[in-house]
Amino acid sequence: MTLAVLRLSHRIIRDKRTTTHLALAARAFGATDFYYSGEHDSSVEESVADVSKEWGGSFFARFIENPSSFITKWKQKDGGVIHLTMFGIELSEQIKSIKEELKKDFLVVVGGAKVPGFMYQLADYNTAIGHQPHSEVAALAVFLDHITDGKARKIKHPDAKTEIIPTEHGKRTKNHQK
Amino acid sequence: MTLAVLRLSHRIIRDKRTTTHLALAARAFGATDFYYSGEHDSSVEESVADVSKEWGGSFFARFIENPSSFITKWKQKDGGVIHLTMFGIELSEQIKSIKEELKKDFLVVVGGAKVPGFMYQLADYNTAIGHQPHSEVAALAVFLDHITDGKARKIKHPDAKTEIIPTEHGKRTKNHQK
Repeated sequence: MTLAVLRLSHRIIRDKRTTTHLALAARAFGATDFYYSGEHDSSVEESVADVSKEWGGSFFARFIENPSSFITKWKQKDGGVIHLTMFGIELSEQIKSIKEELKKDFLVVVGGAKVPGFMYQLADYNTAIGHQPHSEVAALAVFLDHITDGKARKIKHPDAKTEIIPTEHGKRTKNHQK
Repeated sequence: MTLAVLRLSHRIIRDKRTTTHLALAARAFGATDFYYSGEHDSSVEESVADVSKEWGGSFFARFIENPSSFITKWKQKDGGVIHLTMFGIELSEQIKSIKEELKKDFLVVVGGAKVPGFMYQLADYNTAIGHQPHSEVAALAVFLDHITDGKARKIKHPDAKTEIIPTEHGKRTKNHQK
């Protein structure tokens, strides 16, 4: 099963950290792929590649030119589309039916500056992580954490160069570098 | 019960959006107060005040000069301190004991650029939202969502000027402005 994330309308200067945080949250909370549209910004790809190199796994970020054709093709291949938006139906009311469908591939879309109207129509689910304004990073992380039942937080990457040794009061890491 | 959030070491240029996102995530996921240290940046206070004015409630952001004395005083008044850090113990192992203590006031601390060593010692709990690098916004939102059992996502503010009408495919709001 593919659980991909698509971030719309990235702007190089204003969104650099937010998009990188989205990609890293996607990686940490169990997504398998990360795509973004808007302005192509190789620093996003590089930051994510650096993290995967150090902390393991094959997660990467990839720029796509045309999000609407990407989403349309995704749906033609029977993939499901979930759009996270405060205007949608609250997660608690949708989580059950989303989970029942999770055998198929899903694309989780998070908006940028201005979400085009077609997105609300193309999505199978418009899902609100609460109806208050907050943050696309918060919305994505909470959503993924719910649909994976928090299991992704415990994933270990066998090829990690650095691993954390959980500690009550301090910082400890194990280094697997040869 | 007070559930406050403290963001350490804000930098005006680099962290503007992240700190605002942290404050809005704090508001949306059930925190009662938001403090930040580092550089004083009135745009953080203003953005949060604008959101509260429009969407209701009395949530605000406040700058504090000296985080270590703030935390020390918090503890002297019997408040608990939870520091979110990937180096800590995973949430799933700590959530039960944190919830048992939640009758008292809690301060949730999220780091900035470089977390000073004293933080790991001062905190009652150093809590990891997974042990992979991701985002302080993601960590805070997932943490608050867990300790409030997702209930904060359903809070309604009676004094909101704008309210969302949850919609399956579209954007609808109700305007309460007089």
